[in-house]
Amino acid sequence: MLVSALLTSVGINFGLCVLFWTLYSSLRKQPANYDVYAPRLLSDGQSQGSSTFRLERLLPTPDWVRRAWQSSEEELLSSSGLDAVVFMRIITFSLRVITLAVVIGVFILLPVNFSGDQLHDVNFANLTSSSLDIFTISNVKDGSNRLWAHFCAVYLLTIFVCFLLYHEYKYVSSRRISYFLSSKPQPHQFTILVRSVPVSAGITNDTKKLYKRLIHLQREPTASKSQPSSFFGLFGAKDDLVDHYEKKLEDLEENVRLVQSDVSMAGEEVRAAFVSFKSRYGAAAALHIQQADNPTQMVAEQAPEPHDVYWPLFPESFMRRWISQLIVIVACILLTALFLIPVVVVQGLTNLSQLEIWLPFLKSILNVAFVSQVVTGYLPSLILQLFLMMIPPIMKFLSSVQGHISISEIIKSACNKVLWFTIWNIYFANVLSGSVFSQIFIFLEPKNVPARLAVAVPAQASFFIAYVVTSGWTSTTLELFRLIPLICSLIRKCFSGNTNNELKDPAFPYHGVLPRVLFFGLLGITYFFLAPLILPFLLVYFCLAYTIYSNQFINVYAPLYETAGKFWPIVHNSMIFSLLLMHAIAVGIFTLKKLPLASSLVFPLPVITLIFNAYCRKRFLPIFVAYSAETLIKKDREDINDATTAEFFNKLVAAYQDPALLPMQYSSDSNRERTSLLSPV
Amino acid sequence: MLVSALLTSVGINFGLCVLFWTLYSSLRKQPANYDVYAPRLLSDGQSQGSSTFRLERLLPTPDWVRRAWQSSEEELLSSSGLDAVVFMRIITFSLRVITLAVVIGVFILLPVNFSGDQLHDVNFANLTSSSLDIFTISNVKDGSNRLWAHFCAVYLLTIFVCFLLYHEYKYVSSRRISYFLSSKPQPHQFTILVRSVPVSAGITNDTKKLYKRLIHLQREPTASKSQPSSFFGLFGAKDDLVDHYEKKLEDLEENVRLVQSDVSMAGEEVRAAFVSFKSRYGAAAALHIQQADNPTQMVAEQAPEPHDVYWPLFPESFMRRWISQLIVIVACILLTALFLIPVVVVQGLTNLSQLEIWLPFLKSILNVAFVSQVVTGYLPSLILQLFLMMIPPIMKFLSSVQGHISISEIIKSACNKVLWFTIWNIYFANVLSGSVFSQIFIFLEPKNVPARLAVAVPAQASFFIAYVVTSGWTSTTLELFRLIPLICSLIRKCFSGNTNNELKDPAFPYHGVLPRVLFFGLLGITYFFLAPLILPFLLVYFCLAYTIYSNQFINVYAPLYETAGKFWPIVHNSMIFSLLLMHAIAVGIFTLKKLPLASSLVFPLPVITLIFNAYCRKRFLPIFVAYSAETLIKKDREDINDATTAEFFNKLVAAYQDPALLPMQYSSDSNRERTSLLSPV
Repeated sequence: MLVSALLTSVGINFGLCVLFWTLYSSLRKQPANYDVYAPRLLSDGQSQGSSTFRLERLLPTPDWVRRAWQSSEEELLSSSGLDAVVFMRIITFSLRVITLAVVIGVFILLPVNFSGDQLHDVNFANLTSSSLDIFTISNVKDGSNRLWAHFCAVYLLTIFVCFLLYHEYKYVSSRRISYFLSSKPQPHQFTILVRSVPVSAGITNDTKKLYKRLIHLQREPTASKSQPSSFFGLFGAKDDLVDHYEKKLEDLEENVRLVQSDVSMAGEEVRAAFVSFKSRYGAAAALHIQQADNPTQMVAEQAPEPHDVYWPLFPESFMRRWISQLIVIVACILLTALFLIPVVVVQGLTNLSQLEIWLPFLKSILNVAFVSQVVTGYLPSLILQLFLMMIPPIMKFLSSVQGHISISEIIKSACNKVLWFTIWNIYFANVLSGSVFSQIFIFLEPKNVPARLAVAVPAQASFFIAYVVTSGWTSTTLELFRLIPLICSLIRKCFSGNTNNELKDPAFPYHGVLPRVLFFGLLGITYFFLAPLILPFLLVYFCLAYTIYSNQFINVYAPLYETAGKFWPIVHNSMIFSLLLMHAIAVGIFTLKKLPLASSLVFPLPVITLIFNAYCRKRFLPIFVAYSAETLIKKDREDINDATTAEFFNKLVAAYQDPALLPMQYSSDSNRERTSLLSPV
Repeated sequence: MLVSALLTSVGINFGLCVLFWTLYSSLRKQPANYDVYAPRLLSDGQSQGSSTFRLERLLPTPDWVRRAWQSSEEELLSSSGLDAVVFMRIITFSLRVITLAVVIGVFILLPVNFSGDQLHDVNFANLTSSSLDIFTISNVKDGSNRLWAHFCAVYLLTIFVCFLLYHEYKYVSSRRISYFLSSKPQPHQFTILVRSVPVSAGITNDTKKLYKRLIHLQREPTASKSQPSSFFGLFGAKDDLVDHYEKKLEDLEENVRLVQSDVSMAGEEVRAAFVSFKSRYGAAAALHIQQADNPTQMVAEQAPEPHDVYWPLFPESFMRRWISQLIVIVACILLTALFLIPVVVVQGLTNLSQLEIWLPFLKSILNVAFVSQVVTGYLPSLILQLFLMMIPPIMKFLSSVQGHISISEIIKSACNKVLWFTIWNIYFANVLSGSVFSQIFIFLEPKNVPARLAVAVPAQASFFIAYVVTSGWTSTTLELFRLIPLICSLIRKCFSGNTNNELKDPAFPYHGVLPRVLFFGLLGITYFFLAPLILPFLLVYFCLAYTIYSNQFINVYAPLYETAGKFWPIVHNSMIFSLLLMHAIAVGIFTLKKLPLASSLVFPLPVITLIFNAYCRKRFLPIFVAYSAETLIKKDREDINDATTAEFFNKLVAAYQDPALLPMQYSSDSNRERTSLLSPV
């Protein structure tokens, strides 16, 4: 890519960002948008400002940016929970790493690269039309002693990142423990989930059939209810339809009640159960010991928070969950390996000559230099972006059928999937050109990987800069507007004038955002000594991200679940992977640059990094899996002196109930008793 | 290797085996050898036969062979524990696999190979001087449909081995549980070991110094005691020496007592402790929960049996054990990678022309055809054997410094090390010729591994046949004689006439024997369809092994420790590895033989094998890690009704005591009180 094309892309995106930024600064102050842009403040009653018109409301003021940077960790903790705090620490961690990288990269390595003369054909008079390569390590003369500057930089950054990682892991661990210590008694602390409970074979099938019928029945009335109030009501025949549905609904509800009473009264068995204990330590003891002689039966796991339970797979057997896990792994690998095929086909359509043949009337427009630059330079990456937007929901769906019991586990698993998908399909697929299978085969020859990467990675610097500004700057800024909720809200207002609070307090889409942040961290670390030009763009991205996410936490998102920092190990692992990738590329590039001594001296770095990682796994990872006896007993002792404990235990009995077995109240006939027929076990 | 040279090796080894077999059948009946050949029977008082001379004692009778095959699993269990049963099952498992392999390999594949005509230059008139390759798959015509016979054989054996593995894993698991259920209350069932107990820094160093001094002092008197009774006594100055040592011993013991009282009375802290519980379930609950907030502190593990404890590393800190583990891993890798260098150098000395230059007087002898065949064909593998004999003790030493708390863990870890050492240094080093580093680099290009193996493995068939007869037949038969104990016993008898029972009841050297059995299993599986000629030799080996080990369990070995079948997962893993290796070679060889369809159709096999393995890990492995709550509670309930329980708990308090802190009684001054100064914690 030429500097001019890159500058076009940067320019477009910068312009878009400024435009969006300004628009948001003004739009967020309109009361009509409060329910989309600040639902949390609205629900707290803080933003019920007068609806009278004032001029300053139209002016884009940056006060929200200041507030985003000023909010302290304690504020964030009290408003959005520990997960939000940990997420913001991921961004500040990246900011610190990138800041050091910028200092070394831009002020030391960039001048070294630029003053090299390996690439003779650089046209200094017309820099914009020359290749970006003169800013990369490719421009340093082979075997030059200047390469030792890069060598030292690699060592320095590795040590700094490891030091920070250790510090952060320790900090997040201690936060996690103190968060637990300061928490009120909660049902999931006292409860374990036991799955694959062996049942006598005859009853199993009946229960399953009943359960499926129940789920089926449960869905029907919901679907039929939502329609009359929104669209059907518009066409005049409202009363007839409502009557019809009410009648049907009553019949259905009667059936549901019969099935519910069948399930609970007849004592039919389900293959899973939540088991609550009198103390946290008791629950933990039962959790960690293998229960049955057959380890695939009576499998115990920590119960999620009651509202975090993902009910559909609750009673699945071990074998079913195991098989669906295998299928999901295969599906993910296939999706990852074959994703690029449709993308490349669609991108091929933006080929200029192809477009001119298909849409001849565009010929005159396409001949304009700027338009052609946009079509060839900007459109392909836009198409890639659109395809990539589909990935988080797909991965979330795949994770949901994998057998996880909680929504938070599903999100965590999806986050991991999206991360590795991005690394493979954006990083490696772009770096290692060629077909999918030739790419896979490269990793079957690990010896050649460093050399291949060393050749290919620096050459892709400009692509990744364009990617950072498109996917990082623009997409992240666009997230401010919450486009889909905004459109939904507008449609609702047009059709019904109804401004209900249905959109209030959505959960933060970790599986959509976290992989992007981590991927840009990986870009920063691996490109740090190869092409430092990318670093300032990343720095801008992380500043943007800090502002925006600190703001969509204060105003928009409420924690639907709380993993208490369980996302951190993903961050740690991906950073360790980035370091190892950097080392592999360093080995390759020093060999390529005919400095074999430096290449050999890099070897201790991956070994030390792996040992460091092994130590962290022993030292910190267990804290993120379960709480220690020390902590649990401390909390249990506190309860003894607490007067509210007895009341809590009374509530605990009914804390976990499948919504499919709860009483329903949709029809207007409210005479019948609607108490739950479920008896607590 | 030519058929004639192979026949020479087989002939020599067969002759040696028959000779040793006959000799043992006669020698074992001499009362003078009872303490070496049947120490267990001697100690049980069963073999206290009259020492009067009878003729039949000189005749080699095979009755012990019959007894070895007739002994049932229950007999073995009661005499030698579950580990012996599991070990014999490993051999019967191998026997079953090899029997099927012989049926398919010798009666179907061997004729197919032999009637192929890929190798035109076979001299049918003089088979003994031709290459063995005509019996291997190399002789089947490229692209021939006969190769589908081999393809079907690979599928058949894989399914059979997986089926057997599942069945055996299930059987051993159930045996393990029933063994535990039928066991008497034992101290280690109620006890956990807690290590890395945090102590205040000041005291730590003092304790360590005291502990080291204690160990040092403890060793000195033992060493000085053992000498006077054996060698020093011979030189007349016995009385003087004994007096001198007695005096020194008394002083030392006084010091030791002082240190012991320091340690126990002053309440000095040690960084580890055995903690016993009132119930097995209580111990298990404490074992499985992480104790401290810092997972590297208060690390709990299952306590070994009291006599199985390896005390020297008892108080080591987490960091020290972790670092020594890293060092041991590096040492093992270095040893494995560099082992062949001295071996090849020494083997080079057996080069004929080299020998003639060095030892010119041997020239005439070396020119005899048979002698030269022995020197070139037999001597190198003998030298390799001698070097290999050093490996189990070295690996045992390395495992002992790794931080394991029990001797059984050390043996298990050493067994694993020796197994992988053998696979690397015998299998791969012979198959993939070239320098050590070129071999390692082959595995950095996994894509090429199948092709390389497919070329190299069949060519080594005759080497491995020679290896089976030397290392399998002869070495295993030689183990009957227990040469080192025999020589020691003879020396002792010559010098002192003392026939004490010091040799009684040694532990079975699993780390020396098990890797060999597993390696031959691997040979059988991977060579099965390549060169079926090897199979009958393996069948003979496993029959020999069954006889000999069933006999050295009945008469010689007593269980010093009982892992209750924990060796089985090693067996399972090595068999899975063998299957995967066979699949890799099959992919390579079908490609090489220009039958790409068969090559592609093999691909599902490794995938299915890996999924099968993953299932077994979930289904069975946890049973070998810890007992389930179901089992533990069942046992605990039995105790409640048992009258001896109270007495057992009284003994439990003093079950675990470091021998270094026990009262000593070596000197003749027996007036002082010698009670233990250790107070149970």
